[in-house]
Amino acid sequence: MLRNHAPSDQRLADQAYSRIVEIILGGLNVGDRLPSESRLAESFGMSRTVVREALVRLAADGITEARRGAGSYVMRRPSLRLGAHMAFDELSATLGTYEVRFALESDAARLAARRRSPEQLAEIESAMADLRKALLSSDPAHDEDWRLHRAIFRATSNPAFEKAFEHLHEETMRIMRAGVDIARLREAEPIAAMVREHATIVEAIRAQDADGAALAMRWHLSEGRKRLMP
Amino acid sequence: MLRNHAPSDQRLADQAYSRIVEIILGGLNVGDRLPSESRLAESFGMSRTVVREALVRLAADGITEARRGAGSYVMRRPSLRLGAHMAFDELSATLGTYEVRFALESDAARLAARRRSPEQLAEIESAMADLRKALLSSDPAHDEDWRLHRAIFRATSNPAFEKAFEHLHEETMRIMRAGVDIARLREAEPIAAMVREHATIVEAIRAQDADGAALAMRWHLSEGRKRLMP
Amino acid sequence: MLRNHAPSDQRLADQAYSRIVEIILGGLNVGDRLPSESRLAESFGMSRTVVREALVRLAADGITEARRGAGSYVMRRPSLRLGAHMAFDELSATLGTYEVRFALESDAARLAARRRSPEQLAEIESAMADLRKALLSSDPAHDEDWRLHRAIFRATSNPAFEKAFEHLHEETMRIMRAGVDIARLREAEPIAAMVREHATIVEAIRAQDADGAALAMRWHLSEGRKRLMP
Amino acid sequence: MLRNHAPSDQRLADQAYSRIVEIILGGLNVGDRLPSESRLAESFGMSRTVVREALVRLAADGITEARRGAGSYVMRRPSLRLGAHMAFDELSATLGTYEVRFALESDAARLAARRRSPEQLAEIESAMADLRKALLSSDPAHDEDWRLHRAIFRATSNPAFEKAFEHLHEETMRIMRAGVDIARLREAEPIAAMVREHATIVEAIRAQDADGAALAMRWHLSEGRKRLMP
Repeated sequence: MLRNHAPSDQRLADQAYSRIVEIILGGLNVGDRLPSESRLAESFGMSRTVVREALVRLAADGITEARRGAGSYVMRRPSLRLGAHMAFDELSATLGTYEVRFALESDAARLAARRRSPEQLAEIESAMADLRKALLSSDPAHDEDWRLHRAIFRATSNPAFEKAFEHLHEETMRIMRAGVDIARLREAEPIAAMVREHATIVEAIRAQDADGAALAMRWHLSEGRKRLMP
Repeated sequence: MLRNHAPSDQRLADQAYSRIVEIILGGLNVGDRLPSESRLAESFGMSRTVVREALVRLAADGITEARRGAGSYVMRRPSLRLGAHMAFDELSATLGTYEVRFALESDAARLAARRRSPEQLAEIESAMADLRKALLSSDPAHDEDWRLHRAIFRATSNPAFEKAFEHLHEETMRIMRAGVDIARLREAEPIAAMVREHATIVEAIRAQDADGAALAMRWHLSEGRKRLMP
Repeated sequence: MLRNHAPSDQRLADQAYSRIVEIILGGLNVGDRLPSESRLAESFGMSRTVVREALVRLAADGITEARRGAGSYVMRRPSLRLGAHMAFDELSATLGTYEVRFALESDAARLAARRRSPEQLAEIESAMADLRKALLSSDPAHDEDWRLHRAIFRATSNPAFEKAFEHLHEETMRIMRAGVDIARLREAEPIAAMVREHATIVEAIRAQDADGAALAMRWHLSEGRKRLMP
Repeated sequence: MLRNHAPSDQRLADQAYSRIVEIILGGLNVGDRLPSESRLAESFGMSRTVVREALVRLAADGITEARRGAGSYVMRRPSLRLGAHMAFDELSATLGTYEVRFALESDAARLAARRRSPEQLAEIESAMADLRKALLSSDPAHDEDWRLHRAIFRATSNPAFEKAFEHLHEETMRIMRAGVDIARLREAEPIAAMVREHATIVEAIRAQDADGAALAMRWHLSEGRKRLMP
């Protein structure tokens, strides 16, 4: 058996993570200081190690900001609507996939720009047209979103990329669903940004601009994560 | 069902890939030109699309080099010993995981350098000591190799990284086994290089040098792939 | 003397570059095909080598797109207003600094995020406040723009970065002037984007998010270059 | 006038830097702890701000390692031979150029791989042959080293890269001279590594492997910096 650190430790850190998010949503504003590590550990009845791990993940996800020697501060408040798309103790595992996608998808976009055949480009452009239409309608758009990202993975001509992406299917779908939902609660701008970001990626792949495609993909994912914490 | 392009197409490209490798091993030297795409397609009884895909993957893996308008040339000859570690039509899928690992593992090393706790560092350093000992003995060393890479993933404090890495377990193990085996067939230098490369990664993580850790990891993987094609 | 390839070759390529831009502005639309290399060489009375170099640079700057075996196509049309800010044969040398800035400034932002002292952060935030004010007024804003970018270089605590940036002063100032000017010719959106992009960089530096700062800087420069070719 | 923070502050930080290096060379071993910031400030008769800046730069250059809340520790001891190639208070400014070169040269190698013409490749390969010969002789080799790096900059077809590199001429020459000198004081291995690293860059550029070229260049520079602190 591969893993030898207790899965229950991860489960506990997931719970600590979601309880800290509840504290934030319950009354803290951007810039407010979180209770100290030891305070949180005591109030959750968990070890400081577990709470520290949760705080590292919250900072990694852009929700809090650690100031050296001064504790953790709220940087962004997750949207309340996230709760409609996932159980609260799945929040950490779901948001954590972003860092994996930053790595995987920006390199996939880079390779797709370099290697895409005319047929692969046609598949990407058709997926883009469908996504644009879905986003600008009031229909769900996550299937179209997934389809475009997958078409980019395929254009790497390396099946290992697509395989790695499909292992993230569940969490990515949750995020894509939540992303469109939260964007639509606000004015038109976030939806327009989603269209524009995808179109920039596709344009770079079309122009075989490898660095531009990697940059546009990473920017899109980074902005997408922020849109979940508006 | 997620995938809609025929898996059999991928299987065919895998076969074309391994048959081209057989042609190379059968008598081509570095710098020699491969038969043309249409020639290969005809002799394999496959479509040009399938052969083109195989050629794109061979270039991606550093085995061939495409010269614009002038066909494909042999860049490196895979070691014959690879055949002792995998079926020949698994070669493409196995080597293809390198590009995914370039992306995943260099970012994992970067994040590990930034976030590792003293305990996580201790786990990494102990795995390094075991790997060094195993590499310098004549025992197998792939379990120790895997354990070090996994310890680095864990030090990201993002379980999504470790999860993504574990999906690559089978192919990575094959490669780690073949890598040590092929290195030992040659003089002492390749084994010394394997020790040194890992030690450089660990040193950067210890020093919390995020860019240095990412660079050292990517270099290690890139050199490792080349060692399979000595 | 360091350089041994004829400076006049570069001057010629600069001229070929600006003459091709004139052809584009004179009547080609996005997607149109440029005359062939040999056609251009003949009509300019220049060698094909010089014209090829100009075409490589035009593609590098995102103005044209090379399609393998099919010539060069217009990708973006430079704004006519660029002529108000630089001589036409300076266009190539001026736009060419973007690639150097992509490299230098994204790494500078990364290091600034990691190393900035509270005083350096304060200097960056004050420069940001001034830039925001200037951009939202109808006053010139290039001095404020420069001051913010320079404050970020300084926060690397490596004087070699600031020194390298100051060698780009002339071209960067031309671009900053032209950028604001061209943005103001259009609706409010480009100016709002300029404010937002800078604010994202500053936010990441404040939060010591090294990768986020590098990404935001590179995105800002990439978008800035596109705004000159609206 | 562009710069408004006192140049004398930088001069002071340069001096603090070289005095800390003297302390290290005077009797500290790798792993030893440096005197505290306030201790150093007092003994140098300088402000803590200046000493802190020097410590940040020493860590940036890989000489010391900052441990959170526990002060600075020696990570590498600069070679005594550096003193034969530069005044001691130039050490900081000289080593500081490495971070600029990491950014500039890895992107230059990436672009050179993508854009080099057959003529530019021939220039690079001829410079490589000369460098190999010079390194393996007992003659100076820094001119050949410079010529190879410059040929790579030229192959970007973007004169702004070469211009930026030439601004680093003085410091880079100092480093190239010192690098060969220090490598020759030791056994054959460091010189062999210098040959091999350059050859790997050139091979990637020949194969138009953009990511490989950028990686090999960055690795070469990173290893080169370490060779100055053996």
